[in-house]
Amino acid sequence: MSTDGTDRGWFITLEGGDGAGKTTQAERLEQWLGAHGHRVVRTREPGGTDLGQRIREIVLHDRGHVTPRAEALLYAADRAHHVETVVRPAVARGDVVLQDRYIDSSVAYQGVARGLGADHIRSVSDWAADGMTPDLTVLLDLDVSIGRARVASARGDVFDRLESEAATFHETVRQAFLDMASAEPQRFLVVDAAEPADVVQERIRAAVAALVGA
Amino acid sequence: MSTDGTDRGWFITLEGGDGAGKTTQAERLEQWLGAHGHRVVRTREPGGTDLGQRIREIVLHDRGHVTPRAEALLYAADRAHHVETVVRPAVARGDVVLQDRYIDSSVAYQGVARGLGADHIRSVSDWAADGMTPDLTVLLDLDVSIGRARVASARGDVFDRLESEAATFHETVRQAFLDMASAEPQRFLVVDAAEPADVVQERIRAAVAALVGA
Repeated sequence: MSTDGTDRGWFITLEGGDGAGKTTQAERLEQWLGAHGHRVVRTREPGGTDLGQRIREIVLHDRGHVTPRAEALLYAADRAHHVETVVRPAVARGDVVLQDRYIDSSVAYQGVARGLGADHIRSVSDWAADGMTPDLTVLLDLDVSIGRARVASARGDVFDRLESEAATFHETVRQAFLDMASAEPQRFLVVDAAEPADVVQERIRAAVAALVGA
Repeated sequence: MSTDGTDRGWFITLEGGDGAGKTTQAERLEQWLGAHGHRVVRTREPGGTDLGQRIREIVLHDRGHVTPRAEALLYAADRAHHVETVVRPAVARGDVVLQDRYIDSSVAYQGVARGLGADHIRSVSDWAADGMTPDLTVLLDLDVSIGRARVASARGDVFDRLESEAATFHETVRQAFLDMASAEPQRFLVVDAAEPADVVQERIRAAVAALVGA
């Protein structure tokens, strides 16, 4: 039962830079929620649908240059399709949706760090999502140099285009996320992702338990 | 030399329903402009770039259902990329760009006929285009039943998804184009596309000659 009184599930998003541990934390949270009787849908943007997979390929690995506005609009197209075909139906049937990246990532990466304008990007994204707002957003906050070292260690020399951007870009992204969390403290849980994974998971579970009653 | 005093080319768009003769008229206009010493870039949306070709495939022929908002945002992504990499550079070097479909088509098809909202679609499109407005828009206006008969005659039974929509959809599109032309009479030239092709071409050439000084 959500706060608006309708019988529905919950929409939880995970945000943060690369190497912050979003995948690991989502896996463990999914297991824990499952053990407490919740049906969980784990998904991500971009790429949570067939259409999204193709969009993800175009944006991340295409050899041709994709202009920044085109990239932002491709992410928004993925979002529109994904929200309508995956997220909204799952929440409507009472599931817990755990999503890797959502509107906040678009605002941080495209709006702020790439300079397209946070307001423009949020406006386009809100229209794409047609009002679908997370019940909880977990921000895994991490020093940029630690995150980049984790990524390099885990994957060797394989960086995709976003990961190979300069460190100052990632610093800007990090600050953008923190600013959003400050502006919406009721929606955001900010966790220090430099802590051990067990500690991070415990903090997330406490917030999720308060939300879903697990 | 454009009206804003800079040394630049011209951006001319052709709009109208399927079967109105946009391709034929653009071909003939291109030849005529070339004979008068103009460099012409003929292009279209969606599909004027490599990125656009892939987007066009997804939207028109994908077997999976693409949600209406996702479709509109894919068109906007194509537009952003196409304007920045094709249209703006061509106009900047003094060429005449002849483009098959632009923002007005998005507003008519997605905004009005599919009910996503003309204002929302124009807002997203204007942001995608970053202020690139046509110097002239030729609307080839045609009775819907005539247009559909022409398409069927020319192509046999091969209809793509947009063409197989109901006639009422196309009637709504036609009226949306006419309403836009009424609202911006200085930008639009409305031509009765039921007239013989030679007559239609003469009317277009007169307006283009006044614009580019051919």
